[in-house]
Amino acid sequence: MALILGLDPGLGTTGWGLIRAEGNRLSHLANGHLKTDTKAALPRRLAQLDLMVEALVADHHPDSAAVEEVFVNANPQSTLKLGQARGVVICAAARGGRDVGEYAARLVKKAVVGVGNADKKQVHAMVQRLLPGVKIAGADAADALAVAICHAHHLASASVLAR
Amino acid sequence: MALILGLDPGLGTTGWGLIRAEGNRLSHLANGHLKTDTKAALPRRLAQLDLMVEALVADHHPDSAAVEEVFVNANPQSTLKLGQARGVVICAAARGGRDVGEYAARLVKKAVVGVGNADKKQVHAMVQRLLPGVKIAGADAADALAVAICHAHHLASASVLAR
Repeated sequence: MALILGLDPGLGTTGWGLIRAEGNRLSHLANGHLKTDTKAALPRRLAQLDLMVEALVADHHPDSAAVEEVFVNANPQSTLKLGQARGVVICAAARGGRDVGEYAARLVKKAVVGVGNADKKQVHAMVQRLLPGVKIAGADAADALAVAICHAHHLASASVLAR
Repeated sequence: MALILGLDPGLGTTGWGLIRAEGNRLSHLANGHLKTDTKAALPRRLAQLDLMVEALVADHHPDSAAVEEVFVNANPQSTLKLGQARGVVICAAARGGRDVGEYAARLVKKAVVGVGNADKKQVHAMVQRLLPGVKIAGADAADALAVAICHAHHLASASVLAR
C-alpha cells in the first residue's frame, strides 16, 4: 500500500491530489488547490506555498510524491515564475527524503487515458472513472490526480525511480 | 546596524555574501558558494539547497536578504532550472518573515560602480574596494556581495522595500 501525493505546481494556484495505491487498485483520498496571496511580494508567496505543501505532507503523510515534467512556456518571464513555484513545491515535497517522481506529460496521458496524445478533457474524464466517487476541485487538482495515478502505475510495475 | 545576506541563486552553485551595514559604512563578514550534488536528481538537489540556505541563515542571523532580478535566459530549459533553484533560495531566505529585496541588475551596478551599464569586472573590482580586506570566493559570491551592497544602500536611503 502506498499513499501518493500528486502536485501541479503554480505560483497562484497549485493543484494537489492524494490517492492510495494497492497494487493496481487505486482509491481517492483527497484533492484540492493551494492558493497564494496575489497581493503579496514573491518571497512571501513562495514562503506561503512552502508552508502549505509542508502542511499537506504533515496532514497526510504521503509515501511519495509526483509532478509532471514541464512544457517550456513560450514566455520566458512565465517560465521563470513557474520555475520558482515549482522549485519550492518539489523541495517541500522532497523534504525529509521523500521520493518525488517527475513524469513527462505524454507518460501521464498514457497512464491515465492509454494514449500519449489525449486532450485535457479526456484525461479529466478518465481520472473521474479511475477514482470512483472522486469530486475533483478543479483543473489543477485533476492534473495533480493524473500524475499521482501515473506514479502509482510506475510503482505497480516495479520500475520505481531511484531518487 | 543591519546584517544583510546577498544571494546569487543557481542549481549547481549559489553564491552568498554577508555584510554589515551601519548607515553608509559597510563591512564584510563572510562569503562563499553553496554547491549541490550534480549526480543527484532535481528534488534532492533542491532539498540540499534549501537546507544549505537555512543553515546559513541559522548560523549568521541576517536581518534581511537580497537577490538580483533575473535576466531572462535565451534557453527556456535553463530559465526553468534557474527559476526552480531561485524559488527555493528566496523561499528559504524569506522563511520566518525575513524581508528579501529584489533588485534589477542595473540598480545593483549603479549602487556598486555608480553606473548602470558597468561590466562584471568593474563590479567585482568595486566590491573589493567597498569591502576592505574581503577575500571573494568566486564570481557568484562577488555577485552576491554586490546585491547585498545594493540592498544596504537602499536601507541607508530609507527607501526600504515593504515586503
